[in-house]
Amino acid sequence: MELFTITARDGDARAGSLRLTHGDAATPVLMPVASQATVKGVLAEQLADLGFELILANSFHLLVRPGLDVIEQAGGLHRFMGWDRPILTDSGGFQLFSLASLCKIVEEGVHFQSHVDGAVRFLSPEDAVRCQERLGSDIAMVLDEFPGYPCEKDAAERAAARTLRWAERCLAARTRGDQALFAILQGSVWPDLRASCAEKLAAMPFPGYAIGGLSVGEDRPTRAAVVKASAAALPEDRPRYAMGIGEPEDILPMVAAGVDLFDCVIPTRCGRNGRLYTFAGTVNIRNARFRGQAAPLEEGCPCPGCARTPAAYLHHLYSRDEMLGPILGTLHNLCFFQRFFARLRAAIAAGRFAAYAAEFLAGFARPAVEDETSA
Amino acid sequence: MELFTITARDGDARAGSLRLTHGDAATPVLMPVASQATVKGVLAEQLADLGFELILANSFHLLVRPGLDVIEQAGGLHRFMGWDRPILTDSGGFQLFSLASLCKIVEEGVHFQSHVDGAVRFLSPEDAVRCQERLGSDIAMVLDEFPGYPCEKDAAERAAARTLRWAERCLAARTRGDQALFAILQGSVWPDLRASCAEKLAAMPFPGYAIGGLSVGEDRPTRAAVVKASAAALPEDRPRYAMGIGEPEDILPMVAAGVDLFDCVIPTRCGRNGRLYTFAGTVNIRNARFRGQAAPLEEGCPCPGCARTPAAYLHHLYSRDEMLGPILGTLHNLCFFQRFFARLRAAIAAGRFAAYAAEFLAGFARPAVEDETSA
Repeated sequence: MELFTITARDGDARAGSLRLTHGDAATPVLMPVASQATVKGVLAEQLADLGFELILANSFHLLVRPGLDVIEQAGGLHRFMGWDRPILTDSGGFQLFSLASLCKIVEEGVHFQSHVDGAVRFLSPEDAVRCQERLGSDIAMVLDEFPGYPCEKDAAERAAARTLRWAERCLAARTRGDQALFAILQGSVWPDLRASCAEKLAAMPFPGYAIGGLSVGEDRPTRAAVVKASAAALPEDRPRYAMGIGEPEDILPMVAAGVDLFDCVIPTRCGRNGRLYTFAGTVNIRNARFRGQAAPLEEGCPCPGCARTPAAYLHHLYSRDEMLGPILGTLHNLCFFQRFFARLRAAIAAGRFAAYAAEFLAGFARPAVEDETSA
Repeated sequence: MELFTITARDGDARAGSLRLTHGDAATPVLMPVASQATVKGVLAEQLADLGFELILANSFHLLVRPGLDVIEQAGGLHRFMGWDRPILTDSGGFQLFSLASLCKIVEEGVHFQSHVDGAVRFLSPEDAVRCQERLGSDIAMVLDEFPGYPCEKDAAERAAARTLRWAERCLAARTRGDQALFAILQGSVWPDLRASCAEKLAAMPFPGYAIGGLSVGEDRPTRAAVVKASAAALPEDRPRYAMGIGEPEDILPMVAAGVDLFDCVIPTRCGRNGRLYTFAGTVNIRNARFRGQAAPLEEGCPCPGCARTPAAYLHHLYSRDEMLGPILGTLHNLCFFQRFFARLRAAIAAGRFAAYAAEFLAGFARPAVEDETSA
């Protein structure tokens, strides 16, 4: 059985299906982020009820705490967190550079000081594969070198070259047949570097490819251009994953360029903060205009908040700092993104992706009447 | 149809059913506390899934924020909070004395300074009834005078006498036929005052009676003695409610004395703090002994945490201050209390309440091996 089947094409956009060890996932797909083996504030059964088929966990975080021994004793990451559908684990390359207080990269791997206990540790590309094999995720990621942002072109080139060498070592280190290992593309903001890195990775037998080093401060047109150049240089028949993306305005051009997988903390982080997504734009639910709104936040939304309560209730919960506010807000945002992706898949299948994207943006960009004032 | 039907007796203990406007509730019943129109951290549908049939909200808190206008616009408290089963609202007498920074009680009612905006407000017994009628709860409570604790006997006597006069005014103020109004018994720790107050209230046509002024600092034997004297003096055919109770060790003697309703913040507050209830006693889930426990916290518990994940996962979530820890812990504790009350009802129906209570305490009192150490 193929890992990835494309079922519809519309320009460079495509809809398809990933067949993974723990189940299938329809693409384009958004992965909610469960860095610490939890999508913040959401039960595994609620994620399944919302229709999510694939989530992202972070092997670097889990390696540090609670440790791989604990997760192995529990029977692997799926059992540990009570989620029986597919999981993609990130290797931790990005976290090494952003969280470890001392991080020294050598050809063999990365020496780093743990942000938790200060202990000096070492992670090689082989260790990263071994770690993810012990977690038992459906998709593992290679260890890559993120050159930082902004960076000089020669630094980006060196990091991309090392990422290629490490990708080969990761491939050689695999021992599990039930886990797909995806490569990661670097090259910072230079389309020629991205394309050259993509061509070299494409020559290796990876079942999927990620575009890394994004959402680190670059502007939106740059981000879209990098992804477009990268996607065009990657094998057409394999899934493409834009790491850490993103806002709907980012996702649309990337789906148009043929990207299939996304992961983003926006639905959960904004849910906690009270910035809620609707098809008419985002709102600050703490705004006084919601104090007396007897209608739900978004008519027709099947999330528990919109289905059962008025927007005034959400406003009340957030205003009182009640735990249930961020819980319901997170569920609403996840539901919004899930519905958004379902519409993207349907539009591709119907051959009207460009029209749908324009319609969505026309509604979503509607200027919000409110912003910072609060009850 | 009667409000309250007793279906089984075992000594003074009884099992029964409350027939309320929004549905039935089997007694003895524990009401989770939703002071601010939310059981902290729990969705309405999760409460229903756990089998809860009656919850408690606080009209004083809701009167102050979000205000009755907002809740009326939403179609009443049930619609506002998305809960379609019965609700009991407290009148706010206790909160007036404990939260209002200036509180002056006169015969007409209570002048108080809001703890929120400092505004001086006034609440009469008639206002308390009107407020709860606007909320649309199934059971409303009279406005009572809590004399504080500890207090002199003559102060307790004066507060009990005023509570009786206010109870008559509340009865006279009723306008809704679909809401049951319960009286509240005061009298502090003096059984003779409690009994005298109970006899006078019993002569008034209340469909149910609450024993107030408990869990304010008195010791457990005193609390049990007060409740026993109060229950014995109340009409046998009407439901009895011990306000703000409590721990399982409190609940057992009160059920034995014929108490039918309880409300308590323990399941939710302890759930947030990581003190989790099991039939073998309470545990601190942050304790290092749970770090690697691959078995669930309590075998056979149907809560989402125990049903799907090892205790090590709960330990991990609490240790990382992840929102999902307090969520799962609260659900677990609510599930424990719900199972405990189901067993109480079954024991009464089987005529073996005393035996069950002894069995429960023998298991529950098992000394915990752990306490304050944490991973």
